[in-house]
Order: sequence, then C-alpha cells, then structure tokens
Amino acid sequence: MELSTIRHDVTDGVLVVTLHRPDQLNAFTPTMADELEETFVQVNDDYSVRAVVVTGAGRAFCAGMDLSSEGNVFGLDESKSPTLADMQDLSSPELRRVRDTGGRVTLAIHDCRKPVIAAINGAAVGIGATMTLAMDARLLSSKARFGLVFGRLGIVPEAASTWFLPRIVGMSKALDLVYRADVLDAAATAEAGLADAVHEPDDLLDSALELADAWTKGKSPVATALTRQMMRRNSALDHPREAHRIDSLAMFHTSIGDGAEGVAAFTEKRDPEFRGRASELPAFYDEWTGR
Amino acid sequence: MELSTIRHDVTDGVLVVTLHRPDQLNAFTPTMADELEETFVQVNDDYSVRAVVVTGAGRAFCAGMDLSSEGNVFGLDESKSPTLADMQDLSSPELRRVRDTGGRVTLAIHDCRKPVIAAINGAAVGIGATMTLAMDARLLSSKARFGLVFGRLGIVPEAASTWFLPRIVGMSKALDLVYRADVLDAAATAEAGLADAVHEPDDLLDSALELADAWTKGKSPVATALTRQMMRRNSALDHPREAHRIDSLAMFHTSIGDGAEGVAAFTEKRDPEFRGRASELPAFYDEWTGR
Amino acid sequence: MELSTIRHDVTDGVLVVTLHRPDQLNAFTPTMADELEETFVQVNDDYSVRAVVVTGAGRAFCAGMDLSSEGNVFGLDESKSPTLADMQDLSSPELRRVRDTGGRVTLAIHDCRKPVIAAINGAAVGIGATMTLAMDARLLSSKARFGLVFGRLGIVPEAASTWFLPRIVGMSKALDLVYRADVLDAAATAEAGLADAVHEPDDLLDSALELADAWTKGKSPVATALTRQMMRRNSALDHPREAHRIDSLAMFHTSIGDGAEGVAAFTEKRDPEFRGRASELPAFYDEWTGR
Repeated sequence: MELSTIRHDVTDGVLVVTLHRPDQLNAFTPTMADELEETFVQVNDDYSVRAVVVTGAGRAFCAGMDLSSEGNVFGLDESKSPTLADMQDLSSPELRRVRDTGGRVTLAIHDCRKPVIAAINGAAVGIGATMTLAMDARLLSSKARFGLVFGRLGIVPEAASTWFLPRIVGMSKALDLVYRADVLDAAATAEAGLADAVHEPDDLLDSALELADAWTKGKSPVATALTRQMMRRNSALDHPREAHRIDSLAMFHTSIGDGAEGVAAFTEKRDPEFRGRASELPAFYDEWTGR
Repeated sequence: MELSTIRHDVTDGVLVVTLHRPDQLNAFTPTMADELEETFVQVNDDYSVRAVVVTGAGRAFCAGMDLSSEGNVFGLDESKSPTLADMQDLSSPELRRVRDTGGRVTLAIHDCRKPVIAAINGAAVGIGATMTLAMDARLLSSKARFGLVFGRLGIVPEAASTWFLPRIVGMSKALDLVYRADVLDAAATAEAGLADAVHEPDDLLDSALELADAWTKGKSPVATALTRQMMRRNSALDHPREAHRIDSLAMFHTSIGDGAEGVAAFTEKRDPEFRGRASELPAFYDEWTGR
Repeated sequence: MELSTIRHDVTDGVLVVTLHRPDQLNAFTPTMADELEETFVQVNDDYSVRAVVVTGAGRAFCAGMDLSSEGNVFGLDESKSPTLADMQDLSSPELRRVRDTGGRVTLAIHDCRKPVIAAINGAAVGIGATMTLAMDARLLSSKARFGLVFGRLGIVPEAASTWFLPRIVGMSKALDLVYRADVLDAAATAEAGLADAVHEPDDLLDSALELADAWTKGKSPVATALTRQMMRRNSALDHPREAHRIDSLAMFHTSIGDGAEGVAAFTEKRDPEFRGRASELPAFYDEWTGR
C-alpha cells in the first residue's frame, strides 16, 4: 500500500499509524479514509503486528474533515438522495460517494483483529474525535483537545459515533457532549469519561506503546482477536444466550490451539509459546462476523 | 390543546412544561398522561420552540400516580388479561386501558425532536421519577427527592424505565435502585449517577433554561433532531454498521441543508443562520423511526 | 438434589450457596456446574427463599476451572468442531460436551427469579470471576482478588461475560480488563467498578445477608421476579417500545395481585402482606422469557 496521508512504523510488534498532513493539522480527506480503512484490514494478516497505535504528526491529532478537499460530502445534490433501503448493500459501488467516509474507517477499526489505541497528541475535532471512539483506549497528551463539534456546523455526529459513545460514557453524558458540541481540553475530556489516561506530551507515545505491550505481549493473537470481537459484538445482542453460543465455539477452538499451550505452560510454571495467528481464525469466525 | 393538569410557558424558545396539580403534589392522572403525550408530539411542529424543560408547581415535582383518580390501572380484572401477542399493535383502541400510561408519556419523550430537560424541584416518586429517565438531563433542586418506589407497592418499574435506567447508571446501580425502592435525597440521587447537576432551589429553573440554551441556541434544529434520535436509536442496535447507514443519510441531508450554511459560516468566521425546521426532516426519517 | 461440590444453607429466607471444595480452592468442575445450574433453577420454586448469596468455603471464592478434573473442555478434538448453526438448539444432548460449562451456570443465574448476590471472600479467578458478573451485586472481602485471566492462558472470557461485563463497567474498562488479564486486589477491583462494596472479611457474609434483606424483605416476590427480568431483558432490546409492552402486562398483573395489597397497605399506612409466589408468575412470563 502506497501511503500519502498517513505513515506506518512498526516498533517491536506495534504498528504506529501517524496521521501525516501536519501542515493541514492532519485534516481528514477521502484519501486518508481509504488509507486508514485499508490499514485496519491489512493489519489482520500481518503476523509481525500485535497491536496498533494511532497518533498525529505535529501539533494536532486530526483537526476534522478537510473542507477544502475534493470529494467531501458537501457537494451532493438532493436528487441523488438514497433511501434507507438503498443503504442495505454497503458494498454497492453506487453508495461509495454517499457513505460517510468516517464510518468506513470506524467500521474497519471495529472489525480489526488487533487492539487499537489512540494516542491523542493534540486537537482531535470532528472525525478526528469520532474515529477514536471505535478504538479500544484513548490516551491523551495534556495538550490534547477533543471536540464533537458537529452541532456547531449544522451537521450530525458520524463515524457510527452514536453507537460507540454511549457505550463509553453512558447516555446522559453522550447527549450532553453532542448537544453542547464544545471543544474540551484534556482535563475536561478525562472528566467526561473519554480519556483512559492523560500524559505529559513527551510521554504519550511511550505510554501508548507500553499499554499495547501490557495488552498483547506474550498473549495469544488468536485469543486476543476473538476476545476483541466477543466484547464488541456479544454485548450488543439481546440475550446472553447469544454470547454463550459464541463463547462455546471460541473456547472449543482456543482450547485445542493456543489454550492447550497456555494451560500446559501454566501447569508447568513456564512462559507459553503461542503459535496461533490472527489471520487464521476458526471457521465459525467468518460465519459469525461476516456479512 | 386545552390543558387542565399541566401548563405551557414559552420563554425565548424554550417550552417550560409545569406539572400543575399543586394541591395533589402534581400526582399523575390519565388526563396528565394525555396532556404530556400530546405536548411531546405537538412540540415537534412548533417552530418557536428549541427545547423543553419539565418542572413541577409548588413543592413537589410529581408524587407519583394519583391512586384516587379514575382510570388508573388498579381496576382491571384478570379475565381481560392480554397476551404479549395482543400487545403488538399498540395503536389498537382496545389496548388503551391496558397500556401503561407512564409508558405512553416516555415513548413520546423518547421520540421527541427537541431536547428535553427535567428540572426536578421537589419529590419525584414513581412515575414522577421514571418519566424523567426518558429526558436528556435531570437537574435537581437541593430539596428534590427521587424514588423508584415500585418495589414497596408490590408493582414493577414502568414507563420503559428498565430500558432507560441501565443506560444512565449501569446495570449494577440500576438493579440496586429498583430492588431497594428507597426515596433518595438530592445528594444520594447525584451519587447514584441520576442527577446531571444539583442546584439551589431558586437557581433550578434558570439553570435548566441555561442548559437548554447551551444545547440548542444558534444550532440547527434539524441537526439537533437527527442527533437526538441517532443517539437514542443507533446505540441500541446490534452493530455499528446500522448506525453507519443512518449516519450516511443524515450527513447527506444535513450537508445539503443547514450543514452547507454551517460550513460556510465557519469558513467565513461568522455566525450561521440555520433555516431548517425540525418539523421538516428528510424522507428517510419516517422510514427509520416509523412503525 | 444431592450436593458434592457446593452447600446450601437457608437463613431467614436467604439461600447461602457455598462453593465447597476448600482443599482445591473451590475450583470449578463439571459437577459444580451441574449443581449450580440446578440450584438456580430449583430456587425459583422454593417459596422459603427470597434471595441467594454465593460465597466460598475457606480462603478462596473460586480459583477457576479445575484443570485436573474430568470432562473439562481441554480434551476435545478438531474433528468434532461444531458450527454456529449447530449451536442454535442448546437443548441438544450432543452439544452438552461442547457448551461452555460456565455459561450454563450464568444463563441460569440470569434467568433466576430471585436476586443473587456474590460475597467474594477470597480469590475469584477465571470462571470464579465471570460467574459473579451475572449476579446482581458483588460484595468483596478486603482480602478478595478478582482475575479475568483468560488472556494469559490463550483462551477467551467465557460464561457470557462479554455480554455482562460492559453493562457493569462500560466498554473501555471492559476491554482493558480482559486484555490485561491481571489479577486485581479488592481495592483495584472496586476502582474498576466491579465491586459494589468492600468489607472486612468478618463482615462480608453478614453484609451480603443485610443487602439481600434490603432488597427483598417485605417485598412482593412476584414483583421482584418480574423486575429482575425486566431490567435484564428490556434494557437489551432495540427500542423502549418493547419494554413498554412488557411493562404494561407486568403492571396489569401485579396491579391485580400483590400490587392491590401494596397500594391498599400504603393507603392504610400499614405493612403489606404479599401472598404472591415467584413460582406462579402470570402467563405472559413464559411467552416472554421462554425459548
């Protein structure tokens, strides 16, 4: 993949994705959407990567949609208005221009088989804020700002943020944040329940890498991939019976694979050597997550 | 609409609904249910109103169901017992007497296109408490009390409160509150996560009006209406893909309408002049929210 | 029911279930799963019991799956791998060996008609931790530890814990807990939002019994059973309209039964004498909860 708006650096098993349009405060473009979406699909097959950290180059994390860029949604006309029924087949090429670009990215993050951590180094506004809601943790620099500002622009929160946000901060705070549409400083963002930690600017990236290690180093990539999707998918279902169906299959398969090694290592009081790969999940995975 | 149990006052774009049976501590009656339900339907078409504040006249907010009133549920007999299948068509006139009256009100609040704020000036007990769970914020007077007391009366929490409550306070606290069935003072209500703020009694209504302004003044009523329903509906769905479908349509339509003005104003560093109306939402809205 | 791994003691209306393999730190076996599952089914018909408290004998609560025991999942072979479609009929005898044993227990706890309280006296690890997530409160001894350690063993969180956990602590904390897979002390468990209270070891059981009384003593077992399921089931549905259907039926039936007594007692300023039984719920209950 040739990259023009983001950069990839792999450090000891962690892919650092840097939003990289520093002169434009890393403003989001359709090309950036394509590159991010592709990143979170391809990383599933990259055996060398345990986890992903997303950060921004320069003083911003991502200042929102680049309103000057070609192809942003603000160029549509009413006559091409799709219906809700039209939206059912998201793979339709005709929907490409209508589909919210931020949502393409957050759905790819949601479906990713590796943990994803936001290292928010500066202003995260609009899609710069909502893209992080699909990630597994948000670490903030003390200089970061966070703004769900859509309400000030006459538009709506996107990137499936209305699905993710109440799961993180509860319904009351979620409504307050989107109605106010303010830009919060790091302390207020933490107070709102949106930051897992606030770090000095110079410590931010190292802290994110440490968290990635604490989550994934020495652990089974298969178990991690299954666990990530179980938490995100099972919890949204109507009854724990549905989770039980997935649990049973996931436990069956991990107990044959990395779980057998994990239990043996535990019994023998040694470190496990897991051999499973997130790119090779049991057959039920596609049956479960596929569309 | 002629009103006998509540009052309407519009102050600078905010509809203040006052529960107004002060000699009965604003106890809830079937007539009050009808008037509230109708209020939250009609306000959708009232261009002069940006937001709604609900409070009580006199020393109580609402002391619960008026057990002396005609037509309350405690007059039914077993022979008319409906089945769950019977409940499917909620528009059926035969179900009118069986349907929980509190639920008729909270469903109307849930479906409302304008933000709704509870200004809880005194005792909020039973339906007086549960009706506020469907609102977007609960501001409490320091003299307020809050009681999900159903368990003390041998009945169950109603008004769809078992849907709303865990979204606000989490499952553990929700279960504890309904099992204990205690009446909490303002501090304990805040401690339980049920109050967004506690104010001096004399400051309560002004604070509610200020919050309504912070949420809606200078903002697009179309974007606000869509955002409110996206937060409430999308978050309850099985997968963020469903939110993405709605996001795409809502962003498409707002970007043609008030979003075009919002982005232009932002670019030109001036205040936007939004012209959209919550009574005229894009066609997909009915397809999405309708039954 | 003859018991070999757990003990039953009824004290003034509260069933205390003690996990009782103290020499094995109450490690979980298929027999313990059977006995617990049966306990949470049978207690529904036991008029003498208002609530259930679960604790452990000796210094542990439950140290996890007994890896030395017969019949644990770590003895399956790939050739018997079921599909997700195979898992639909959970009553199938062929699925008995594949179904996660912890999930059989937590589904029975979830479906129970009486409140269930965990009194976590010592280490609660693996299934020892996840089984408590389906209970209505977790009281911890200051000596307790809590570990969702699956990730260290190359396996996945089970017992439908990915359904229960985010409802208790939110999505961010839930992901952090299962990715880290650490064993937390009592203070850290409370800090994570997993403990409703931490008590001195000698006060733990009495505190659990007091909570059981606060929740159920003098209250209608019918209203309590309906409320428990309404909170757990309604909140997981797509729209509050679904909760309203159940509310209406539950209010109809309780208002004819214990609610009539509850309201009469309230009006007459006396204690109610509820006569309903959790074993005899209205007809819609099976229609609603059955499969």
